[in-house]
Amino acid sequence: MLPERQFIESIRRLAGKGGNRSIVRGIGDDCAILQVPGGSQLLVTTDLCIEGIHFRREWHSATSVGHRCLARGLSDIAAMGGEPIACFLSLGVPGQLPKKWADEFLHGMLRLARRFAASLAGGDTSSAKRITADIVVLGSIPAGGAVLRSGARVGDCIYVSGELGGSAAVLQSLDRGKKISPAASQRYFYPEPRVKVGRWLRQRGSATAMIDLSDGLSVDLAHICQESGISAVIDERAIPIAKGANLESALHGGEDYELLFTTRPGAKLPPKIAGVPVTMIGEIEPKSPTASRLRIRDGSGHLRLLKSEGWQHFVKRQPHFVKK
Amino acid sequence: MLPERQFIESIRRLAGKGGNRSIVRGIGDDCAILQVPGGSQLLVTTDLCIEGIHFRREWHSATSVGHRCLARGLSDIAAMGGEPIACFLSLGVPGQLPKKWADEFLHGMLRLARRFAASLAGGDTSSAKRITADIVVLGSIPAGGAVLRSGARVGDCIYVSGELGGSAAVLQSLDRGKKISPAASQRYFYPEPRVKVGRWLRQRGSATAMIDLSDGLSVDLAHICQESGISAVIDERAIPIAKGANLESALHGGEDYELLFTTRPGAKLPPKIAGVPVTMIGEIEPKSPTASRLRIRDGSGHLRLLKSEGWQHFVKRQPHFVKK
Repeated sequence: MLPERQFIESIRRLAGKGGNRSIVRGIGDDCAILQVPGGSQLLVTTDLCIEGIHFRREWHSATSVGHRCLARGLSDIAAMGGEPIACFLSLGVPGQLPKKWADEFLHGMLRLARRFAASLAGGDTSSAKRITADIVVLGSIPAGGAVLRSGARVGDCIYVSGELGGSAAVLQSLDRGKKISPAASQRYFYPEPRVKVGRWLRQRGSATAMIDLSDGLSVDLAHICQESGISAVIDERAIPIAKGANLESALHGGEDYELLFTTRPGAKLPPKIAGVPVTMIGEIEPKSPTASRLRIRDGSGHLRLLKSEGWQHFVKRQPHFVKK
Repeated sequence: MLPERQFIESIRRLAGKGGNRSIVRGIGDDCAILQVPGGSQLLVTTDLCIEGIHFRREWHSATSVGHRCLARGLSDIAAMGGEPIACFLSLGVPGQLPKKWADEFLHGMLRLARRFAASLAGGDTSSAKRITADIVVLGSIPAGGAVLRSGARVGDCIYVSGELGGSAAVLQSLDRGKKISPAASQRYFYPEPRVKVGRWLRQRGSATAMIDLSDGLSVDLAHICQESGISAVIDERAIPIAKGANLESALHGGEDYELLFTTRPGAKLPPKIAGVPVTMIGEIEPKSPTASRLRIRDGSGHLRLLKSEGWQHFVKRQPHFVKK
């Protein structure tokens, strides 16, 4: 048996049988076969994770990299209000990568996959200069029920789940060689996709628009504004800032994987959904005649423009942890 | 607008609206939304294409790379007898990559996508040291109708579509700086996924097992043997060898993207299916008590073992074109 085949066989064993009942046939044929539940539509999301861009082997354990790669996709499913069904892994690895690293990566990924019933149903492998993982997550949603980015209307309230800026603060500490608290470390290295929060909001018809906070509040809120054709104003004092973070990282730091959503004016939300606090941070306004769509109100009530400054791979300024 | 967003907007424009009617929502939200046709199951396949492993910029034009990446996935859909629905592109590119290259890559991919009604419905972008494309293709199949690798039975006949070894021969010529005929060049740089052949075989229930020839006959036939729990013997004189190729490249060369399939004994096939010649090359035998599952009969009727020697990324011996 040749090495690539061996590696695929080991993935096949680890992926296990059973799992999500939508998987008619998983790893082992030209394609995976899935039975999408009756009356449902299919959700599909793909996320690239590349060594040196999305993670560093000296900072991120293999288990954390596996968890985080999949968490990004599950968070996208959460942001539509969907249920995960299956995941697919395309993995390129350097020839000299220790088998232990690959095994722990798979372990981190599959542990999270099992918790969300997202069976690993296929993928591809290749050699590569740097570790490269592309993870596809499929989910289902009752037909017509997905919460889109484009549903926000003038007067809607803007909410976020959890606390913001924690991931950016941890990255900054890693970059400066500072100690990280166990709680912050857990949230950063093993983020929890807000699938239950997204499902709750979709089932009750509470959210008019939704997105997950992967690029940072200032970027992701701009996406909602663009797709919905509106503007937004947020209140500086209302933003739930994670312990150890500051306003800057809460506004522009990425990878918090919380949900950002809008509700009809006057809609009542409990203080927590599925155990996660939700906080109103602003409101939707008519589309501004100027180019800028985001404004922020400071402690004394003054409004200023808020620029989108989140994580953008293609700009010269690399994300924090590859800056040096 | 920041560069990554700009790039995504340009993909979104090129991907266009309309396309496959199964796409409820394509690029522009957290997930794509698809409506899988009623009574159908979903097929999913993913393929990694990495610069220096799967292609070389000095040999492959950007248009050819885009075409070939998608052709690999469409060929997997063909090998189940399925209909393409949508594709997803995760693309990592070096910061200094000319915009022209990216545009031509997309052009090559989308031209093929349109021909097979496989709308580009989403993806991801990142910076990367080397060009890295992961392409996911989704397809549909009437529930329970997929032609698996595991359906071959003792006594079945083994067939291939088209001619074999042509791609390996072209690679060898490229490696040696030799001239390539326009016809061979077209087949290698712009392979035609055999979707119509696969559909024909599935609709008529003619094929008991099927796989596409991406790794080479000796490797892909071994996959059918392993999944079906049988052995196979093929006839050296029967193998349709492409012009310019030899038996060696027809047996072990990859990337021909023809279909390898089995039929019930006595099943009648026309000489061509959807305009593509099909050739009987051997038969299925009981599982051999030894480890080896493949044998080949030479011109004088002698049988010898056939080793699986196709393209395997993880072995030290790299594919031809990255050997030097």
